[in-house]
Amino acid sequence: MSIDDLRPRIDWGKYQTLTLDRRDGGVLLVTIAEPDGFPAPTLTRRHTEISHVWRDFADDPELRVAVITGRGDKFWTVEGTDGIEEMLENPGSYANTVNLIREGLANVHGIVNCDKPIVSAINGEAMGSGLAVALLADVSVAATDARLIDGHLLQGIAAGDHSVMIWPLLCGMAKAKYHLLASEDLTGEVAERIGLVSAAVPAGDVLDTALGIAHRMAAGPQHALRWTKRSLNHWLRTATPAFEASLGFEALSFFGPDLVEALKAQIENRSPEFATPLPW
Amino acid sequence: MSIDDLRPRIDWGKYQTLTLDRRDGGVLLVTIAEPDGFPAPTLTRRHTEISHVWRDFADDPELRVAVITGRGDKFWTVEGTDGIEEMLENPGSYANTVNLIREGLANVHGIVNCDKPIVSAINGEAMGSGLAVALLADVSVAATDARLIDGHLLQGIAAGDHSVMIWPLLCGMAKAKYHLLASEDLTGEVAERIGLVSAAVPAGDVLDTALGIAHRMAAGPQHALRWTKRSLNHWLRTATPAFEASLGFEALSFFGPDLVEALKAQIENRSPEFATPLPW
Amino acid sequence: MSIDDLRPRIDWGKYQTLTLDRRDGGVLLVTIAEPDGFPAPTLTRRHTEISHVWRDFADDPELRVAVITGRGDKFWTVEGTDGIEEMLENPGSYANTVNLIREGLANVHGIVNCDKPIVSAINGEAMGSGLAVALLADVSVAATDARLIDGHLLQGIAAGDHSVMIWPLLCGMAKAKYHLLASEDLTGEVAERIGLVSAAVPAGDVLDTALGIAHRMAAGPQHALRWTKRSLNHWLRTATPAFEASLGFEALSFFGPDLVEALKAQIENRSPEFATPLPW
Amino acid sequence: MSIDDLRPRIDWGKYQTLTLDRRDGGVLLVTIAEPDGFPAPTLTRRHTEISHVWRDFADDPELRVAVITGRGDKFWTVEGTDGIEEMLENPGSYANTVNLIREGLANVHGIVNCDKPIVSAINGEAMGSGLAVALLADVSVAATDARLIDGHLLQGIAAGDHSVMIWPLLCGMAKAKYHLLASEDLTGEVAERIGLVSAAVPAGDVLDTALGIAHRMAAGPQHALRWTKRSLNHWLRTATPAFEASLGFEALSFFGPDLVEALKAQIENRSPEFATPLPW
Amino acid sequence: MSIDDLRPRIDWGKYQTLTLDRRDGGVLLVTIAEPDGFPAPTLTRRHTEISHVWRDFADDPELRVAVITGRGDKFWTVEGTDGIEEMLENPGSYANTVNLIREGLANVHGIVNCDKPIVSAINGEAMGSGLAVALLADVSVAATDARLIDGHLLQGIAAGDHSVMIWPLLCGMAKAKYHLLASEDLTGEVAERIGLVSAAVPAGDVLDTALGIAHRMAAGPQHALRWTKRSLNHWLRTATPAFEASLGFEALSFFGPDLVEALKAQIENRSPEFATPLPW
Amino acid sequence: MSIDDLRPRIDWGKYQTLTLDRRDGGVLLVTIAEPDGFPAPTLTRRHTEISHVWRDFADDPELRVAVITGRGDKFWTVEGTDGIEEMLENPGSYANTVNLIREGLANVHGIVNCDKPIVSAINGEAMGSGLAVALLADVSVAATDARLIDGHLLQGIAAGDHSVMIWPLLCGMAKAKYHLLASEDLTGEVAERIGLVSAAVPAGDVLDTALGIAHRMAAGPQHALRWTKRSLNHWLRTATPAFEASLGFEALSFFGPDLVEALKAQIENRSPEFATPLPW
Repeated sequence: MSIDDLRPRIDWGKYQTLTLDRRDGGVLLVTIAEPDGFPAPTLTRRHTEISHVWRDFADDPELRVAVITGRGDKFWTVEGTDGIEEMLENPGSYANTVNLIREGLANVHGIVNCDKPIVSAINGEAMGSGLAVALLADVSVAATDARLIDGHLLQGIAAGDHSVMIWPLLCGMAKAKYHLLASEDLTGEVAERIGLVSAAVPAGDVLDTALGIAHRMAAGPQHALRWTKRSLNHWLRTATPAFEASLGFEALSFFGPDLVEALKAQIENRSPEFATPLPW
Repeated sequence: MSIDDLRPRIDWGKYQTLTLDRRDGGVLLVTIAEPDGFPAPTLTRRHTEISHVWRDFADDPELRVAVITGRGDKFWTVEGTDGIEEMLENPGSYANTVNLIREGLANVHGIVNCDKPIVSAINGEAMGSGLAVALLADVSVAATDARLIDGHLLQGIAAGDHSVMIWPLLCGMAKAKYHLLASEDLTGEVAERIGLVSAAVPAGDVLDTALGIAHRMAAGPQHALRWTKRSLNHWLRTATPAFEASLGFEALSFFGPDLVEALKAQIENRSPEFATPLPW
Repeated sequence: MSIDDLRPRIDWGKYQTLTLDRRDGGVLLVTIAEPDGFPAPTLTRRHTEISHVWRDFADDPELRVAVITGRGDKFWTVEGTDGIEEMLENPGSYANTVNLIREGLANVHGIVNCDKPIVSAINGEAMGSGLAVALLADVSVAATDARLIDGHLLQGIAAGDHSVMIWPLLCGMAKAKYHLLASEDLTGEVAERIGLVSAAVPAGDVLDTALGIAHRMAAGPQHALRWTKRSLNHWLRTATPAFEASLGFEALSFFGPDLVEALKAQIENRSPEFATPLPW
Repeated sequence: MSIDDLRPRIDWGKYQTLTLDRRDGGVLLVTIAEPDGFPAPTLTRRHTEISHVWRDFADDPELRVAVITGRGDKFWTVEGTDGIEEMLENPGSYANTVNLIREGLANVHGIVNCDKPIVSAINGEAMGSGLAVALLADVSVAATDARLIDGHLLQGIAAGDHSVMIWPLLCGMAKAKYHLLASEDLTGEVAERIGLVSAAVPAGDVLDTALGIAHRMAAGPQHALRWTKRSLNHWLRTATPAFEASLGFEALSFFGPDLVEALKAQIENRSPEFATPLPW
Repeated sequence: MSIDDLRPRIDWGKYQTLTLDRRDGGVLLVTIAEPDGFPAPTLTRRHTEISHVWRDFADDPELRVAVITGRGDKFWTVEGTDGIEEMLENPGSYANTVNLIREGLANVHGIVNCDKPIVSAINGEAMGSGLAVALLADVSVAATDARLIDGHLLQGIAAGDHSVMIWPLLCGMAKAKYHLLASEDLTGEVAERIGLVSAAVPAGDVLDTALGIAHRMAAGPQHALRWTKRSLNHWLRTATPAFEASLGFEALSFFGPDLVEALKAQIENRSPEFATPLPW
Repeated sequence: MSIDDLRPRIDWGKYQTLTLDRRDGGVLLVTIAEPDGFPAPTLTRRHTEISHVWRDFADDPELRVAVITGRGDKFWTVEGTDGIEEMLENPGSYANTVNLIREGLANVHGIVNCDKPIVSAINGEAMGSGLAVALLADVSVAATDARLIDGHLLQGIAAGDHSVMIWPLLCGMAKAKYHLLASEDLTGEVAERIGLVSAAVPAGDVLDTALGIAHRMAAGPQHALRWTKRSLNHWLRTATPAFEASLGFEALSFFGPDLVEALKAQIENRSPEFATPLPW
């Protein structure tokens, strides 16, 4: 008897914004729904689902490696203005913030503590929680022309969802701060050059490359594979307190004026005029 | 009421070796004096001022982002032989060493613990404490042909002023040790390639690029910006004990024969002949 | 009187698989024996000797810098099938595993805790414990066409001998996991590009370049040099628990079925068919 | 919508060796089955269940605080000789060891990463995995005459299940090593004196005291409570690599001769005669 | 010239809620104002002043050791209900929270990073930010009957101001969590027994004992003293990320319903009825 | 073949200030020479020998557990004034300081990295390097009336030889700083109460108690024992950078005026009058 026997059966049918495709050899392909024209509740549901899926993947005894990708030229974007008006009606909601922070934790720790490897196939634009998934994945394959952007500061909030945990260990401090503090986007090609992703290939080859790596890992020795990932991730576990400190500050920034101004500027299609801050 | 109201007024006029220029939007441009032909006391004063300026910058409620640069083709050099003779007259001075170590701590922790961003515009040759400033800055823009060199070992002393804290997190251990242990200099172009600086541009564009980044950050959401820097810097805070261990060994090397020999060789324009060391 | 006087005289003649050449200025050149056609006991002895040599190097008061290299186009390989049959006769030997783990610890900590610098001249193919030596060396010079491969997973065992300690600090997490989890080899040229080694030069120049760096360091201030290495290595000391966790899992994988299958597949010249793992 | 909606319904009925009692206010009382005369499969099942229960507790939205206790004068013991013979028939089983290590991880991380508080009511003798639960619990109330003993070394195996993670932070290194290395048991009274448990009370008051504390916490502000536990536990998360290193060595010791000898001595009711070890 | 010459003159006269008494030998006695009947603005000012005073103490070249104490039988309490109504009128104020968090950081890091020793004379009841000062002080002398209580959870907020940084290193995890999670107060006598304070003496002897220790330290070798404190405090610097994570969660809890309910219950003189929390 | 075969034969006869007694079962009893009336060179030799003996103990394959004790009512003292005059003739000697620091490192790391257990039998007064040995030992048994004192500050130098590494993990910060910063001695009885030592017994029973524990450990499973010690000591390895930072500051204080004044005061049998320090 083992822990697995105590677990309830996973209901894979509950996912609405992620398409799940079980491939040969224990490879799970997760495809993120296109957000275009999606109403806010769908975006919210997508955030919840991405935060939970790693647990189901870890629990399913038949699965060995996950590949996650997006559709068309988008990996994960937050488009449209539907959600913004709702947020502006209820700025600084404690309930929303608690839920967001909790899901952010579930997403990050879900990826880090899942001993099975995860491969991201960054087919196109990646930002927000999607960028967290793309870069926390163990192996990351980006389209050379994919656009990666940590947009937290553009939204007036602290970068709390993954960057403090892993960027300095991916591309070093000088590059990390440049892109995070100055909100500089970068292409997949540049991302590979500075170490932010494992590899960059033409957009048309991203998914096949990622699946190829996944299948190769799925055919390898699973215990050795999982224990090696687990041991390497102690670097990230040790960075957990710093990550959660950033998350705490991100939470605090949800209650300040800059998020509101950023959202207003977005629907008014203008640059935000952030107010003079309280001293810090 | 807040802490700011308890602080004394900053006397910005006291700086003699740094030129301070308050730009629009809360950007402070700090220009380092040219050392050519400067007598030793001026160099000493410059060391003191650079160690203190971060505190005043952090305290000034109107300032948001600092840019620091040098003049001509030098960011920070230690030229001439004026100071050396004085040092040779008084080798292994406890008072001097205590002061140097203390200022080194003030410089490093001053940059790290200042939550406001600092941008270095490395217009040319950078070494010594100036290199510490250049590389600890949050965003660093170097001239492609700038020469960066950590010259501690060339002076016979351990590299204690910043390298242990941040080099492994900038360019990785293999590159860090190569340049630090073998006293290999590198250009801004190479520095960018290995991640030691954020960006490299032609010398003529360095300051404008740095100012552009600074103004963009100064127009951003200040709390989110400062909290993101603060959280990222936990990586450096965690490395503080190792950094201070290196500083302790640097202090010890001030009392050994190798510094004296390095200085003598310098004024005699020859290679140093370091003596057989005590076993270690 | 000092600790040195309490030490027994080093018997440098005991080494059989390493050739030792004392050069001018305190440089020790260590050349690894060619393994081709070597019987298993020789390979075992080589593993033991490489794990011990750092201690003798550290103890010898006349030595300052070590350079380690291989012969021909091989730095360290594990060729032939002699040893495999012996291993297959005695899979999961507690005695062998204890000895291997202990030597792995001696090798890694021997390099890290030796304050004198070590330069690796990676003349060709490097894998296994040899790769650990090549990459833990303070300065690493690789032939542009050298092939580096961490083959642990190909052998069905967890990557426990050095990778968790230093890869994330050499080339970042995204590259480290790609090469370690997917068993991707890389050339010296690529290794230099991602920061895994200090420099890459044509094969014919590797040893001279390494010796040049070694002699330059040997002529430098020895205390300053050793204290700088010592301080930088606190980054690795802090990663020791994670490294030893990986070593523990590697030890565990010696008792599982995947190592046996990998070895069988190797002598049968086929791809391994790893069994369905126990859940993890 | 939140993560909770994606979770399957918890089947609390599956537990056979733990009695679950839902009290008012969200308090869950978990009572460990008496092991006396239990056959080995039951002991194995108990080990599995204790490793899994923290996840169900964390997931159940109605539960706030867990109290765990034993029956009679035993909190958790491993009595009888049923299981030993089975183990002796199959010493050094890879499958068994992998499962044990995995459950050990699930138990420890399950308690540490569950943000809801757990109170242990150590009514009597506690050892093995039960001691891990007793001491990793956030608040621990022990009977003054309870006997606590980490028996790993008595069994010939390394102390890998929890002690490295938390003992030095409970009672300090000098006490921790004394009890762990010399296999010294201690009473609840002494345990309280050295900080190993939160409180010691007469045996008859243990459960009521623990329940009292649990109900008081269950009536408190739940978010503040969980976030405070979470933040305090970063101390344990940072110690995770060291803990897992100890677990790796424990795993290795399962394949050595000392466990066999300890088990044989136990069924033969004599002191073990551990063999001369391989050098280490 | 040194950094000191660049500092502005300290205006010690600005303090209104702290009485400052310069004693012989460089000892500064800081006495905290009695809060009884104080209006909320005074309490706010006291919070600001305590957060700032460590910087002035560190800067003043004539001062060597600080002693901090309270008046009568109170070290630091938050009495009366004046401030509460104001807080209830403006719950979840971003401006107030930012200021509180900032002052909390200034207080904690001000004590930790001041290399000169600080002695707390805990004459009576201590809670809130005053408890942070009392326990972060390098040497802490408590009245045997002083009451120490971390009241964060009683107020519905996470314990974020100092406890995560230092309690586990004072009294161990089991005691720390008991008092912090279950809001258990303790006397000075018990605090000494579990290591939370350095010494406990009768109330009448607290100040003299503290001053005696302070004068002895002030007569000692100042550099050796400051460097020893500095080095010991690396333990706290390493815990900074965890501390700031707790502070972030405390900030978040300022916007939730539990603080409001706790305050209402306090002015209505009843137990709070905390609402069912959002899942976490 | 194993590493042991490569080691030279240990010459146990070289020790002059330590008496070595090989007991049954692999127990080595080390007795420290009485220093009374010993000339300075003997004290120096004792310092060297204690720093080296751990390596020989670790290397000797027949030895399992070491017990270290002193003679009469002294464990380790530094009496007489012979050495002082010599030190005063040559204050701030770089050669002496380098040697002292190096031996301090060898002593501390020698104990920590020796996986075999070490038991200290603190029969009487313990200070200086002897206190480091007494408290870094894995199990420490003190005479109830033994006097323990870290005398660094009394000598005008920073406490750098072991205290930063282990005191906070023995007795907590509040007690550690009290005794270290205020140079407060303590008895074995008090030391046990605060966790600084494992046990306190009447002076006449110290050695027998220590030997009893040693023999019990020597009869236990050696691999399990050594791996448990090794894993627990990761807590100390992680604290290595902080420890070495303290050592660096101790080294610096050897060159300052306070050591000289402390020594002069000692031979003149008066209290030292430490000079006004340079600002720090």
